[in-house]
Amino acid sequence: MNGKMKAIVKDKCGAGAVLKEVNIPQINPDDVLIEVQATSICGTDLHIYNWDNWAANRIDPPLVIGHEIAGKIVEVGGRVEGWDVGDYVSIECHKICGRCYQCRTGQAHLCHDYSILGVDFDGVFADYARVPATNLWRNKVTLSPEVASLQDPIGNAVLTTLSQDISTKTVAVMGCGSIGLFSVGIAAAAGAEKVYAIDVNDYRLGIAKKMGAYMTINSRDTDVIDVIMEDTYNEGVDVFLEMSGNETALVNGLKFIKYGGNVALLSVYPNKVSLDLSNDVVFQGLTIRGITGRRMWDTWYKTAALLNSGQLDVSHVITHKFPMERFEEGFVAMNSGESGKVILYP
Amino acid sequence: MNGKMKAIVKDKCGAGAVLKEVNIPQINPDDVLIEVQATSICGTDLHIYNWDNWAANRIDPPLVIGHEIAGKIVEVGGRVEGWDVGDYVSIECHKICGRCYQCRTGQAHLCHDYSILGVDFDGVFADYARVPATNLWRNKVTLSPEVASLQDPIGNAVLTTLSQDISTKTVAVMGCGSIGLFSVGIAAAAGAEKVYAIDVNDYRLGIAKKMGAYMTINSRDTDVIDVIMEDTYNEGVDVFLEMSGNETALVNGLKFIKYGGNVALLSVYPNKVSLDLSNDVVFQGLTIRGITGRRMWDTWYKTAALLNSGQLDVSHVITHKFPMERFEEGFVAMNSGESGKVILYP
Amino acid sequence: MNGKMKAIVKDKCGAGAVLKEVNIPQINPDDVLIEVQATSICGTDLHIYNWDNWAANRIDPPLVIGHEIAGKIVEVGGRVEGWDVGDYVSIECHKICGRCYQCRTGQAHLCHDYSILGVDFDGVFADYARVPATNLWRNKVTLSPEVASLQDPIGNAVLTTLSQDISTKTVAVMGCGSIGLFSVGIAAAAGAEKVYAIDVNDYRLGIAKKMGAYMTINSRDTDVIDVIMEDTYNEGVDVFLEMSGNETALVNGLKFIKYGGNVALLSVYPNKVSLDLSNDVVFQGLTIRGITGRRMWDTWYKTAALLNSGQLDVSHVITHKFPMERFEEGFVAMNSGESGKVILYP
Amino acid sequence: MNGKMKAIVKDKCGAGAVLKEVNIPQINPDDVLIEVQATSICGTDLHIYNWDNWAANRIDPPLVIGHEIAGKIVEVGGRVEGWDVGDYVSIECHKICGRCYQCRTGQAHLCHDYSILGVDFDGVFADYARVPATNLWRNKVTLSPEVASLQDPIGNAVLTTLSQDISTKTVAVMGCGSIGLFSVGIAAAAGAEKVYAIDVNDYRLGIAKKMGAYMTINSRDTDVIDVIMEDTYNEGVDVFLEMSGNETALVNGLKFIKYGGNVALLSVYPNKVSLDLSNDVVFQGLTIRGITGRRMWDTWYKTAALLNSGQLDVSHVITHKFPMERFEEGFVAMNSGESGKVILYP
Repeated sequence: MNGKMKAIVKDKCGAGAVLKEVNIPQINPDDVLIEVQATSICGTDLHIYNWDNWAANRIDPPLVIGHEIAGKIVEVGGRVEGWDVGDYVSIECHKICGRCYQCRTGQAHLCHDYSILGVDFDGVFADYARVPATNLWRNKVTLSPEVASLQDPIGNAVLTTLSQDISTKTVAVMGCGSIGLFSVGIAAAAGAEKVYAIDVNDYRLGIAKKMGAYMTINSRDTDVIDVIMEDTYNEGVDVFLEMSGNETALVNGLKFIKYGGNVALLSVYPNKVSLDLSNDVVFQGLTIRGITGRRMWDTWYKTAALLNSGQLDVSHVITHKFPMERFEEGFVAMNSGESGKVILYP
Repeated sequence: MNGKMKAIVKDKCGAGAVLKEVNIPQINPDDVLIEVQATSICGTDLHIYNWDNWAANRIDPPLVIGHEIAGKIVEVGGRVEGWDVGDYVSIECHKICGRCYQCRTGQAHLCHDYSILGVDFDGVFADYARVPATNLWRNKVTLSPEVASLQDPIGNAVLTTLSQDISTKTVAVMGCGSIGLFSVGIAAAAGAEKVYAIDVNDYRLGIAKKMGAYMTINSRDTDVIDVIMEDTYNEGVDVFLEMSGNETALVNGLKFIKYGGNVALLSVYPNKVSLDLSNDVVFQGLTIRGITGRRMWDTWYKTAALLNSGQLDVSHVITHKFPMERFEEGFVAMNSGESGKVILYP
Repeated sequence: MNGKMKAIVKDKCGAGAVLKEVNIPQINPDDVLIEVQATSICGTDLHIYNWDNWAANRIDPPLVIGHEIAGKIVEVGGRVEGWDVGDYVSIECHKICGRCYQCRTGQAHLCHDYSILGVDFDGVFADYARVPATNLWRNKVTLSPEVASLQDPIGNAVLTTLSQDISTKTVAVMGCGSIGLFSVGIAAAAGAEKVYAIDVNDYRLGIAKKMGAYMTINSRDTDVIDVIMEDTYNEGVDVFLEMSGNETALVNGLKFIKYGGNVALLSVYPNKVSLDLSNDVVFQGLTIRGITGRRMWDTWYKTAALLNSGQLDVSHVITHKFPMERFEEGFVAMNSGESGKVILYP
Repeated sequence: MNGKMKAIVKDKCGAGAVLKEVNIPQINPDDVLIEVQATSICGTDLHIYNWDNWAANRIDPPLVIGHEIAGKIVEVGGRVEGWDVGDYVSIECHKICGRCYQCRTGQAHLCHDYSILGVDFDGVFADYARVPATNLWRNKVTLSPEVASLQDPIGNAVLTTLSQDISTKTVAVMGCGSIGLFSVGIAAAAGAEKVYAIDVNDYRLGIAKKMGAYMTINSRDTDVIDVIMEDTYNEGVDVFLEMSGNETALVNGLKFIKYGGNVALLSVYPNKVSLDLSNDVVFQGLTIRGITGRRMWDTWYKTAALLNSGQLDVSHVITHKFPMERFEEGFVAMNSGESGKVILYP
């Protein structure tokens, strides 16, 4: 398709981004072109917008940013099979090599040689997006574009939460950013006996309550170890999902977990973390899982099942919606801490 | 404790039972005596009452029958540690050897040398019951005696259902007797995307709906394979729980299951079952698990968590309540097919 | 590549096959052309050669048969990435759809819509073979072509055997055809405490002994249940691999397995099988897994590791080697029962 | 039994121990008395002998030390069932509560309220030892007392090693103390493709080679990350068993492990450990398991199977044998670093 479109572009090194007119991308034979219906802002987009150290090292402007999307296929490359114009889709943002050990053994989310849409090549905050057909996911027509665009980050939460045995178990979610909030809802939907949601931000804890938390704890005011140990009859929780990226939070969590319990880490820690491995991990017989990405496509099937069945209602996590022209307001909301997910419409 | 009590006694070979006065049992040093608050009738009790072939081969009258119970400890044997008069308890009805390979590796429910309360020695349909302390389970005081007495059969359903991966999966429960009905509720509580409940009895299907079935199917009127395959987009269900004891039902279920799916059998089949193993099991890559009993005590913890949290509400399955004097009406209800669980009070 | 080659062709409906000159296949852009170094005869090839009911229903002559192969790439299609002329390869014989639920969740061996090389399209008993690049497996140069050609059937045995917990466990392999013999060796390499090999054919049991069987049992002469129960102190085996396709063999195996044990079925049964599910599966708490194909590519990595490390030595299973011109002798050996694997060289 | 016996006694706070005559212990009704045939010195005994901080805080002299033992029952308490005079036994040294969540769910090795033989009450470095019957393990008569006494520490290695998927996998064992050496042998017996053994002590690496290591690496001379990455084609190992208790060793190991790999920690670290969790655990998708003790009795069954079958030959790890009178030489050997296990005979 020829013509112009608007896009949010990181046009130069440094903070900020601009909305500008660019060419509609020309697809290759293995690609499709998607007409964007809704997108959402990821923490990664915020890093790029704010131009932190990670972004400065990784990003090569100019770049159309964004990777969380729902839309309709408007053009199909010549070698693409199984997809048609009009199909309603979202996308997995990791483009994998397909040939390494991990890719060939069902662990493509751990591919050694992957690139990311909106990070390593042009993304989706635009009227149209060019996407490799291998990365497409078919949406049910009953799923709204806003929610459909969230499946990528919900998938992180699904992989983290459902890598644990949840039904009849007590679960603590540490850190109620968007992925933590999704995890609260997923753990509740998967039959956790109790979900404890912990954060330092009452706004987010309020959303956690709506997502199904049995108890919300503001760890700024409260001794979270005391509260959880008392409420679990001094046993501790079965499952501890660490999503705060905060060293103290992690260390505290290892004090309120049950002997033999399970810990999942879906966090980026700004520095090294100092742990009392002997007492907190070895003698407690813990299992700790580092989690990243989404299983292709097992995690997507689970995510879609949770959303299509209505078991997981993420409407409370969508706190802001803007047309793309007002994207600056979206990034302000993201930076404020008083937000969940921010939707941008083309 | 000395004195007399009333008890439901299988007093001779043949159908029926009698309510009569017997001695309160004298406890041994490893036993406790429980004052019974509520009991429920198991299918096993019905076999004994009706005096079928199994009962005629196994039961040696006179015998106080019954094994599903909630009550309070009123006397504690001299060697018992950790239990006191006044403790509110239920019991695991399998008395295990404690020394075989299975008992020593966390599989005591598969003990080679076990005996059953109310089958191999006197049971609980009485004012008082003598029970080995090793078989005690402590109830939360907030749990009603009626529901607490059901934890043994609910445990069968918990072991069967939660031996499968349930969250985000489609589940078919074949056979809506009490354990099937519990399984419907457990699968729903554990986050199944959809639970299909199948039976030939509309009364039971009505209860299944209340327990959280997404769809109920009367297989007498309806082609269950067609219905489920259509509703699952021709994929079939992820999990098939066979609880009917009916050969045709099992064979049909193997036709509406997903390639790579999981089957659990918690059924007694009156005869051998003829299966097309090549096409239905090998080429479909199925896993079939035979399930019996309850894990001691993992299953009990899970059962209690489901009940104490309110995630599993079994009130719809309790269809009849009688004082022990009217036990005959209870057995009539059990034989009618138009019943769930029947509670008897001393 | 243009020119002529010799190939073993099923040229018409009915028993037998012919060696004839045919065109070297023209590759498509997603294919490679392999110069064949060694092939081996599968049971499937024997069905086609003998023209049994299955073959008559499935095969559409003329067809180049065969699918077990090792060779070198001599031509690479225009769209193929990651493969070069000279690469030493074997192939997965299942061509999968890549789009169904199973393909997208790491279960491509259970694809709903697959076709098989040498069954549904031309195979490898020829000088050259055209193969989709998606089906290629890279061999270590130190692996002989004969052994490399066996990785497909060894993979069946690897998937079956290593789907069980083997280390420190007792394992019974029922049926010592080639795949049973591989399984004996794999179970021994994976640290089984004891491997019992059972067959009615002393020739094959002799090979089983060389593959590492702790005990070989000819079930024609011996009460296999008695022997195994006595040798396992009346516990039974932990793992029972049913590879005979014989109903009585399966039924017997369910009598010498440990309560809570694991059964794997990699067999085609000519008829329905009648089982005492209540006593043999439910009350014994067994898990039964139907196994088919090879996981792509997890099973191939495991197979290669076993062969490359020398842990699995399959030389005893290779009983016959012929040039392709003498293929008739190969099929005679396969039909005789006095054979393991038969290698054919172009 | 009345009379006197010799025993190694920690008679006062401070380094050292004495061999002295004490009363033969009087058993309680739930105990047995064992005539000791062989014992071995554990690292825990060395801590007590050397009187480090841990010992000073935990031990209350006078105390008969030691807990690794093989011997014959010579007296049986009045309430003990299933054990007889003459039975040849070893013991699990953890005396558990039997009533906590962990004890009741197959995780008794993680009991909250346990005590240890030879640490919290009198142990086994003596002519006779009093032991609770619940802690007995029956030995095959074909197992030598020396090896039978080692089952407790071998059990630690079995639990650590076999908690991982080992067959066809590459395994690195970091730290070749006795438990590391056992782990090398267990990984080899369980079918690891390659076992890398790493230490700073060539004497121990020499033993590791005899235990089945594919490669031994002295990390004092060699860049262990380079060596392992090169030998694994830059993939890293599947399994990393950290048994050194050294922070640098652990951190290095996280650099030579495969994405998606498994780490087990059976170590006591003298201080907190600083980890780059984001890069080394989260983004690599690792699973880390803290391991302590032995599963009762699953680990014992596996340990016995490895020893009784001859798959695990620990004779190379037994480097010293002394009569109890020369126990001082045993502790000198243990402190020297130039030793494996030291046997003491009464």
